[in-house]
Amino acid sequence: MTPTQPPYSGIRTFLGAPHARTCIEETDIAIAGVPFDIGTTYRSGQRFGPQAIREASLMLIDNDNPRFRQDPLEILNVLDLGDFDISIGDTEKSLQMIENQALACPARQLISLGGDHTISLPLLRALKQKHGRVALVHFDAHVDTWEDNFGTELAHGSPFYLAAREKLIDPQHSIQIGIRSPVENEVMDWTLEQGFTVVSAEQAHLSTPQVIAEQILACVGEIPAYLSFDVDSLDPSQAPGTGTPEIGGLWSWQVLAILERISQLNWVGMDCVEVLPAHDISQITALAGATVVWMYLGMLAKGKNSM
Amino acid sequence: MTPTQPPYSGIRTFLGAPHARTCIEETDIAIAGVPFDIGTTYRSGQRFGPQAIREASLMLIDNDNPRFRQDPLEILNVLDLGDFDISIGDTEKSLQMIENQALACPARQLISLGGDHTISLPLLRALKQKHGRVALVHFDAHVDTWEDNFGTELAHGSPFYLAAREKLIDPQHSIQIGIRSPVENEVMDWTLEQGFTVVSAEQAHLSTPQVIAEQILACVGEIPAYLSFDVDSLDPSQAPGTGTPEIGGLWSWQVLAILERISQLNWVGMDCVEVLPAHDISQITALAGATVVWMYLGMLAKGKNSM
Amino acid sequence: MTPTQPPYSGIRTFLGAPHARTCIEETDIAIAGVPFDIGTTYRSGQRFGPQAIREASLMLIDNDNPRFRQDPLEILNVLDLGDFDISIGDTEKSLQMIENQALACPARQLISLGGDHTISLPLLRALKQKHGRVALVHFDAHVDTWEDNFGTELAHGSPFYLAAREKLIDPQHSIQIGIRSPVENEVMDWTLEQGFTVVSAEQAHLSTPQVIAEQILACVGEIPAYLSFDVDSLDPSQAPGTGTPEIGGLWSWQVLAILERISQLNWVGMDCVEVLPAHDISQITALAGATVVWMYLGMLAKGKNSM
Amino acid sequence: MTPTQPPYSGIRTFLGAPHARTCIEETDIAIAGVPFDIGTTYRSGQRFGPQAIREASLMLIDNDNPRFRQDPLEILNVLDLGDFDISIGDTEKSLQMIENQALACPARQLISLGGDHTISLPLLRALKQKHGRVALVHFDAHVDTWEDNFGTELAHGSPFYLAAREKLIDPQHSIQIGIRSPVENEVMDWTLEQGFTVVSAEQAHLSTPQVIAEQILACVGEIPAYLSFDVDSLDPSQAPGTGTPEIGGLWSWQVLAILERISQLNWVGMDCVEVLPAHDISQITALAGATVVWMYLGMLAKGKNSM
Amino acid sequence: MTPTQPPYSGIRTFLGAPHARTCIEETDIAIAGVPFDIGTTYRSGQRFGPQAIREASLMLIDNDNPRFRQDPLEILNVLDLGDFDISIGDTEKSLQMIENQALACPARQLISLGGDHTISLPLLRALKQKHGRVALVHFDAHVDTWEDNFGTELAHGSPFYLAAREKLIDPQHSIQIGIRSPVENEVMDWTLEQGFTVVSAEQAHLSTPQVIAEQILACVGEIPAYLSFDVDSLDPSQAPGTGTPEIGGLWSWQVLAILERISQLNWVGMDCVEVLPAHDISQITALAGATVVWMYLGMLAKGKNSM
Amino acid sequence: MTPTQPPYSGIRTFLGAPHARTCIEETDIAIAGVPFDIGTTYRSGQRFGPQAIREASLMLIDNDNPRFRQDPLEILNVLDLGDFDISIGDTEKSLQMIENQALACPARQLISLGGDHTISLPLLRALKQKHGRVALVHFDAHVDTWEDNFGTELAHGSPFYLAAREKLIDPQHSIQIGIRSPVENEVMDWTLEQGFTVVSAEQAHLSTPQVIAEQILACVGEIPAYLSFDVDSLDPSQAPGTGTPEIGGLWSWQVLAILERISQLNWVGMDCVEVLPAHDISQITALAGATVVWMYLGMLAKGKNSM
Repeated sequence: MTPTQPPYSGIRTFLGAPHARTCIEETDIAIAGVPFDIGTTYRSGQRFGPQAIREASLMLIDNDNPRFRQDPLEILNVLDLGDFDISIGDTEKSLQMIENQALACPARQLISLGGDHTISLPLLRALKQKHGRVALVHFDAHVDTWEDNFGTELAHGSPFYLAAREKLIDPQHSIQIGIRSPVENEVMDWTLEQGFTVVSAEQAHLSTPQVIAEQILACVGEIPAYLSFDVDSLDPSQAPGTGTPEIGGLWSWQVLAILERISQLNWVGMDCVEVLPAHDISQITALAGATVVWMYLGMLAKGKNSM
Repeated sequence: MTPTQPPYSGIRTFLGAPHARTCIEETDIAIAGVPFDIGTTYRSGQRFGPQAIREASLMLIDNDNPRFRQDPLEILNVLDLGDFDISIGDTEKSLQMIENQALACPARQLISLGGDHTISLPLLRALKQKHGRVALVHFDAHVDTWEDNFGTELAHGSPFYLAAREKLIDPQHSIQIGIRSPVENEVMDWTLEQGFTVVSAEQAHLSTPQVIAEQILACVGEIPAYLSFDVDSLDPSQAPGTGTPEIGGLWSWQVLAILERISQLNWVGMDCVEVLPAHDISQITALAGATVVWMYLGMLAKGKNSM
Repeated sequence: MTPTQPPYSGIRTFLGAPHARTCIEETDIAIAGVPFDIGTTYRSGQRFGPQAIREASLMLIDNDNPRFRQDPLEILNVLDLGDFDISIGDTEKSLQMIENQALACPARQLISLGGDHTISLPLLRALKQKHGRVALVHFDAHVDTWEDNFGTELAHGSPFYLAAREKLIDPQHSIQIGIRSPVENEVMDWTLEQGFTVVSAEQAHLSTPQVIAEQILACVGEIPAYLSFDVDSLDPSQAPGTGTPEIGGLWSWQVLAILERISQLNWVGMDCVEVLPAHDISQITALAGATVVWMYLGMLAKGKNSM
Repeated sequence: MTPTQPPYSGIRTFLGAPHARTCIEETDIAIAGVPFDIGTTYRSGQRFGPQAIREASLMLIDNDNPRFRQDPLEILNVLDLGDFDISIGDTEKSLQMIENQALACPARQLISLGGDHTISLPLLRALKQKHGRVALVHFDAHVDTWEDNFGTELAHGSPFYLAAREKLIDPQHSIQIGIRSPVENEVMDWTLEQGFTVVSAEQAHLSTPQVIAEQILACVGEIPAYLSFDVDSLDPSQAPGTGTPEIGGLWSWQVLAILERISQLNWVGMDCVEVLPAHDISQITALAGATVVWMYLGMLAKGKNSM
Repeated sequence: MTPTQPPYSGIRTFLGAPHARTCIEETDIAIAGVPFDIGTTYRSGQRFGPQAIREASLMLIDNDNPRFRQDPLEILNVLDLGDFDISIGDTEKSLQMIENQALACPARQLISLGGDHTISLPLLRALKQKHGRVALVHFDAHVDTWEDNFGTELAHGSPFYLAAREKLIDPQHSIQIGIRSPVENEVMDWTLEQGFTVVSAEQAHLSTPQVIAEQILACVGEIPAYLSFDVDSLDPSQAPGTGTPEIGGLWSWQVLAILERISQLNWVGMDCVEVLPAHDISQITALAGATVVWMYLGMLAKGKNSM
Repeated sequence: MTPTQPPYSGIRTFLGAPHARTCIEETDIAIAGVPFDIGTTYRSGQRFGPQAIREASLMLIDNDNPRFRQDPLEILNVLDLGDFDISIGDTEKSLQMIENQALACPARQLISLGGDHTISLPLLRALKQKHGRVALVHFDAHVDTWEDNFGTELAHGSPFYLAAREKLIDPQHSIQIGIRSPVENEVMDWTLEQGFTVVSAEQAHLSTPQVIAEQILACVGEIPAYLSFDVDSLDPSQAPGTGTPEIGGLWSWQVLAILERISQLNWVGMDCVEVLPAHDISQITALAGATVVWMYLGMLAKGKNSM
């Protein structure tokens, strides 16, 4: 049934999902914003990312995804939790709070809307308790495996350095797509030595989504997979609203085409990070983020349907 | 108690008030967005005004208003209804729908967030059933008493022409502040002949808020009063995000100072219209709108407290 | 001869063409703005599209198109009519007015600058009287064959549903390129059942302009062809200034390369719609629209030259 | 009669006046854009000022000015000439061209839309042939009497230094309002020694429009008066779209109130300069410029009516 | 001597002052940026404030201040230190680093460019070692004497709560101008009980700069005075580029007029905080900040000259 | 060693290189801004290009280029000279000043940051004295070989017309990539007749970076090569901040991939022109320019290392 309210109407929740501050066990998917941005090394303002993604998701409400021919919200029980609590100006305390809130959520899966990329660390820490070590499918311009962020251990350049160290992710089954930033040779060498598969943006441009998708499938295999989508994986023309842009990035059509082709993975969670609306133009970055989350829901719904 | 969540967190409702699609009789104040903008004669996009005002209201949550020394949400039972349904591309049908929804709301008062100024007409039509003919306290750059809008009878230049004709408002007890737009002599003459008091923006600048407030109090008297706040009453520097700006406008400090001094009126409803976020800069127009609504709530709360 | 006035000079008409409110029969091409935007289901403001396209066309004045090696304005007699009258806030009346004005124009062809996509319907209604049922070559993110627009029959999601129903276009000879929006399965199924050829943006990316052009040529054949170019067919990075963006869109280089390769079609008219300057950045959306219209003029000029 | 076309419709000329590249002697007022901006010492882009002022003037079409209770275009025969030719990258040649074109215009008066302030010099040179030495009524943040512009004699800091030197203006009857920029003591001393009356923005704020108007009337007296309105006389909040902003500026309400009170001067021409749309927000600077020109037309129309 | 380089040229230091990472004892004034913004409770991005203020200061180079008739850089030995080191994501550590760097600077005075308002605390801690307890002259929309910031002790709402507690400032000799934000009654009561003089923005509007200046002079007296200028003291129309705007603010002309009248105070340091360029329009907020610092230098230069 | 200062800190020089107004002979590479923009035929404001490129280069500091696996500033001795002097409003004099300053610089190579494309002419004139006639590797939407610019000989459409005429460049060894603008047939014919190789943007899209790189290598051969990078070679979505955009442009990933493959050329200098920050969004155009210069430094560093 077509809704009678145009999409610019009403209180903004993600895809118009119902909102409650606490979720219940019947919830398939809980959506939580994580307005944390003090881990950024360049621009800040990602704290407004969750709301921007919600606002942009209006364009996607109440229709079928033409790739999957379904509306994921008709198949999955989705709840928008609002935003996780964080502590102003205190990274360590905030990360602990994020981890605790993720652990406290009884939904089958949690999708987190960032916020800067630091938040992947506490989310993966929480996930480990449920799924053990996971495979990382990581779209980004940066490897995010720095040991150090201009003198700080814990910030948005280091979540996967620590996640690998803490055995939250398995680098042998992890893959990074869109990589192209300046990076010290030692950081890149360490990353490759751990076993991460690194696909540069140029490689993606010179290849096809089908080939990249097969590379992901081969790398990840059967183990539980976590999707971490940093909007700066996209070209700055498609994602100007972010904190650490790098030219020469991925195209959104490539990302969507790749995701469609890896829906069969054993997905256990995702985050969409680094949307910075103060630098966006006409919400295009936020729309990219929202659409990727919508695609992820479509992948899950496809899996549920085929069960 | 200070909240532990910073204001950039969470689902956006007006001032963080609870949200429900239908209100109940215990509700003191229902807030409803009216995303109608097809009555505009210049720029459109006011359909996003309600959400912009909600978003800007974050800055005002959970603190006391220093003029009234209270937080209106601790005194009044406020509910955010979300947005009224409207009909795309059809003024007549939309206005009927707005009137019906206003009538169906059992709250003690309704505050409407526009949307363009056309919406004041159906809101006043609904109000008449409850309060009879009301006094209009109208902040605007334009008298909005045109008989015609470039060939159209019913649009945002004519709500108070029709409201006067339909005896929804009493021009003898109605006052317009901030007026300065180009206007045909016949329209201005008709307005004055009806009995409207017209205070130009220049008069306000050459006078003081105290004097203007006294003028309003004297004009309105004891009869039920309706506040219609068009953000284009403000100078375009303070309200660039609107559809029909006129230079030389009121200052927001004047508006706040005037409102503080007319809190004793017998208020029965208000609307805040013509916020157009696509033309705003850093939400300043939306913040002005939100703050005026917050002041209005403060006036009501003061009245309730003094009861 | 090179002009001595730089392009930022002078009164803005499309490509600097002469302006008159009424055209005469010697006119090859009449350009008309259609500032109608109340059929939009998300953002409004397309009423300023015609002027934005005119302003952006300055960059294209007085030079040859390198693909066709001619300046279309040296070959074709082009007149800028200014904008069609519309009725504020009244879709039905406005569409009738647009149809009447299109019918009253004696130029050999009419090019319309939108405005939202609703306007294609009255333009096609007028065209039918001259050319009968036409083939539609339609660049868009959306199929625009919805039967319903959030409760409204006639809005920018439905022009081609009605055009097919009214036999203004022949779906068997009609093709839609760039399609990718969320869409109910029933709408897509109906569209395909009517015979429309639907080429998704992803298909275009995985193919070449030459192949797409051949597909268009094969689909349209010899019957009169109408070009409807919605700027949201382009990726939001290239066309942020529009009302209903969808990520993963076409590239402008693809569109230009396709158009160059289908110049031999029996063109009878075109529209360029959904330019929304309030959301544009540095006029890039308007420039895309203006360049596509300029390409269309080049196609016509090539045809005239080869006669 | 109310027009049936909304103001966002049609080809943009100033106030919708007819357009012709050459004017005739019956023309009361010729409007000419002067898209010259290479005399700027900070931001450039004022070449787009004329079109921005035309576009913003849409808001003022076909209504009466409430201060003068007339529509100047019903009283005066106004023609929009489009833009004067200039020479790219060559100040000297451009100024000669501007002077020649001003001289060639047989209209009773010329109103020029800048462009940067350098253009006042050739305009005053042309005016001298008709009216001899004139009084200057000059709204600006800067005295514009620098002998030197970072090594260049002729640029936007020096028009009135040269105009005084060339006896185009009479400093004893000239007044500058809104002055507040950093300025070398020698420049200010020279200016005062010539006899210019300098009214700082702070003086205007601490006084009233009535007092300032009386000061202007007393200073100018009966001799022919030329109005040069630099939008940077206004506060940057009201005129962000300009090249050399200075904080603490005039308010537009003050400017309008002053102009209303000096309509009886013997006006012989005006320019409105330094509108820079690339730095504007929602056209507010352009609207301020357009409104001041509209006020000037109102003053002339009042004079004509009273004849 | 007039410079031969236009102001848009060259490497940006504050007012074009020489740059060195360490200052020497002969330096009168050291300028230091403090790119710390993780103490913000609403918008972040003030880390780019220092550079924005430097960039905007270009407009003020190499000319005399018309109020003081001198160029402060010809009188004072000014050095731009660049920016202080801070620690990403760690408030406590950053504040210690700021204090240490301020202490290590041997210049006669330090002017700090923020950054968010949290930085005033470590700057005052460092200042205490040199001057003991100081008087605070504080322009702001907020009292900044909160004991708590949404669960955090140390953030931009609390510097003066802690400064009063730590006896860095003497509330009896401290004055806050422009105050108008929502504030819990307890916070305002505590502030007044400590002895702070609070001047609301409305009081400033209803009074004159001369009266406010006299109030400041009387409050501060002879003790060492520290100026803390938060750009959100200004109205959002004049300072949109900030993190926690409140409507109804001060005018920049008032601030300049007040400063001119309090130059005789025993100034020992200043900061200019909360410039957030990502939300600014055409640098007007940054220009306001830069001009206030330039005024402060003019006050110091006047004092030095009169010695 | 990782720096302890985040990239948003400190005085902006290109890549954080040391700044001095004069360079010495040991300097490998001198960077000079050329804030000249009066040769533009459409938008102006490129005078702020040099600073915008410096600011955007912050993102690239202190890391290795992943393509070359080195940080060019660790290998090359780079100095930022600040900006060249120019003469306001006088093209001829400015170009002479630019040439003189380029000649006076004893560094091994000069990299110039524009400014508009006119500046390539004096830079090539200076280069000729050192290297004789050079090969031009030219990325642009326009051939820039116009004999005339709307009546002006010397402007940004003509540098390579004059450079060919003056035998500063050898057209037989010169190649232009990204060409697509409207252009008179005579201009294009003349260009091809001189021997320039012209690669359209569409050809680049239908080919691969490897093929284009081979075409460049074959065309240029062993003679000294000069890189002129106009950001309008990029698509307007990736470079909105420029003066004469043309749709259908190159992608930044293609440019980077091509540059990586032509590092072995005998490079003797480069310029990066037409960055216009007032029309940019979130610095993406400036970042593209900065990254291309960084790639050029990487090519030089690779050559130096391999020596």
